[in-house]
Amino acid sequence: MDPFMVEALAEARQGLAEGGVPIGAVLVRDGVIIGRGHNGRVQEGNPILHAEIACLRNAGRIGDYRNTVLYSTCMPCFLCGGAVVQFGIPRVVAGEARTGRGSWDWLKSHGVEVVDLDLDECWQLMQGFVGRHPALWAEDCGAFAPR
Amino acid sequence: MDPFMVEALAEARQGLAEGGVPIGAVLVRDGVIIGRGHNGRVQEGNPILHAEIACLRNAGRIGDYRNTVLYSTCMPCFLCGGAVVQFGIPRVVAGEARTGRGSWDWLKSHGVEVVDLDLDECWQLMQGFVGRHPALWAEDCGAFAPR
Repeated sequence: MDPFMVEALAEARQGLAEGGVPIGAVLVRDGVIIGRGHNGRVQEGNPILHAEIACLRNAGRIGDYRNTVLYSTCMPCFLCGGAVVQFGIPRVVAGEARTGRGSWDWLKSHGVEVVDLDLDECWQLMQGFVGRHPALWAEDCGAFAPR
Repeated sequence: MDPFMVEALAEARQGLAEGGVPIGAVLVRDGVIIGRGHNGRVQEGNPILHAEIACLRNAGRIGDYRNTVLYSTCMPCFLCGGAVVQFGIPRVVAGEARTGRGSWDWLKSHGVEVVDLDLDECWQLMQGFVGRHPALWAEDCGAFAPR
């Protein structure tokens, strides 16, 4: 498996062990991980703390995202895709997009390169979680929103 | 002035007094403010903590955003607009959009009602800040991103 996705998956599993939503992310620049994080909705009581947002928070004020790649175990949603577009992250690598296509098409329309690794490990982790905690997953997705 | 925008502007001014980017936001449900915040990039060293994100964080896990209105002293950027779309916030009220159109058109394309109050108070606060701190403003905007 892609070594950076291995680390994103480790973040997701740490989140699961904490009782949270099992999605993890890492931010990579020049082959080095400069930020990592996992969804913290439950742990920090923070609805905005999706994995990619936690990762970008933890990377700190790097200022220039032009040479970065954002890895996430899931395809980023519109919140996280919004961060990608706003800060000009040029490349996103997702562990899977079977759980949801998220902001994939919108990211592409903004010139972001999007790769879907379509990994069973990532998908199974989400499937197990969504099956056990459908209400928490709905909350995290903003499932009350008209789609 | 709209009383909720008065509160958003108070948040923005508090941020300025703290040495931060002067943008404020409040989240309103059924005529009551249920969350408020201001940009915390400088204060918390957190690039993701735009005013609207801070406001949504501080509102906590409300789960259902269908009856909420997000007020911001500026038109939300794509990060903050992404949160609006993801969580299904149906209405956004901005203090001004002269500093930038942000995600206005994209929000409208997702059915979000967007109101621009076009207030001199909000615009002058931003103009003064951008003139004094252009590098900080560029950083907050992700200005290195291709646009």
